[in-house]
Amino acid sequence: MTYCSNCGNLTTLSVPPGDDRPRFLCERCGTIHYQNPKMVVGCIPEMDDKILLCRRSIEPCYGKWTLPAGYLENGETVSEGARREAYEEARARIKVLIPYALFNICYVNQVYLIFRARLLDHSFGPGSESLEVRLFSETEIPWEQLAFRVIEETLRQYFRDRPAGLFPFHMGDIFQRK
Amino acid sequence: MTYCSNCGNLTTLSVPPGDDRPRFLCERCGTIHYQNPKMVVGCIPEMDDKILLCRRSIEPCYGKWTLPAGYLENGETVSEGARREAYEEARARIKVLIPYALFNICYVNQVYLIFRARLLDHSFGPGSESLEVRLFSETEIPWEQLAFRVIEETLRQYFRDRPAGLFPFHMGDIFQRK
Repeated sequence: MTYCSNCGNLTTLSVPPGDDRPRFLCERCGTIHYQNPKMVVGCIPEMDDKILLCRRSIEPCYGKWTLPAGYLENGETVSEGARREAYEEARARIKVLIPYALFNICYVNQVYLIFRARLLDHSFGPGSESLEVRLFSETEIPWEQLAFRVIEETLRQYFRDRPAGLFPFHMGDIFQRK
Repeated sequence: MTYCSNCGNLTTLSVPPGDDRPRFLCERCGTIHYQNPKMVVGCIPEMDDKILLCRRSIEPCYGKWTLPAGYLENGETVSEGARREAYEEARARIKVLIPYALFNICYVNQVYLIFRARLLDHSFGPGSESLEVRLFSETEIPWEQLAFRVIEETLRQYFRDRPAGLFPFHMGDIFQRK
């Protein structure tokens, strides 16, 4: 943040009075520009014993497989966001079941919230950010071709939980690779 | 957002190519300024059969009671954020137990995530945003003097769950009052 989005003046980076960390400040209009993590919402779309994955048509990780997920938008609930992303990326209509996993990815200031969801029918297909969308059984999951570690962690947990049929809410962290 | 935070030019509000909603755009440097919900993290600090509340020394809701909670900061996990807020607002040291409730407050673009937590000792007191901090048993909760509806909803759910000793994860929405 170089310029104040309120008045166009150059900002400075310093600790405001009563605060404990540097913020981008505008010394002309007095605005403090707080910057906070973003939420990424997504789901594991289930149909029978299979789940739906999307192969990305965009960078990063072009050509790799992922769960439908994306940034939560202003004005929508976390469930609505997960449903929108399933439609945008996989043209899939889902029923959101329950929140399943939350992952902190502090080094990119993201919080992932992944739901379990039920795929409502077979009418799915690639949205504009996908090359291909298909159902995978557990043995078919392309573990070496997954787009993001958070997706791999989510799916490994999911398949650990599935034999018991119990899916308690999980929290975890994804750390930056050394 | 009136000015581009990257180059200082005036922004315009329009739908970028391939997008489906208006964003603040800079026509000079091409930056798209996405705006997304913020997470508020907090906790219900438990000690024996009591919970800790803080009486606010700041607006909004000066003088009303609330749970320690605040915006998640860049670089911290949701649990770390809840722990930091408990210390900032109530000088309380807590052990975060489990995520307990998520509330969407779409009309102010906030997602609240509230944990159950254990108060580690009796050394608590008002931080800079509190007038007073004290433990309340269920019958002492100042229901008419709570700061925010999300706090009231959280506590009502909590005391509904407590008799059974089971605290499943809850999701809910807080709607704007007509």
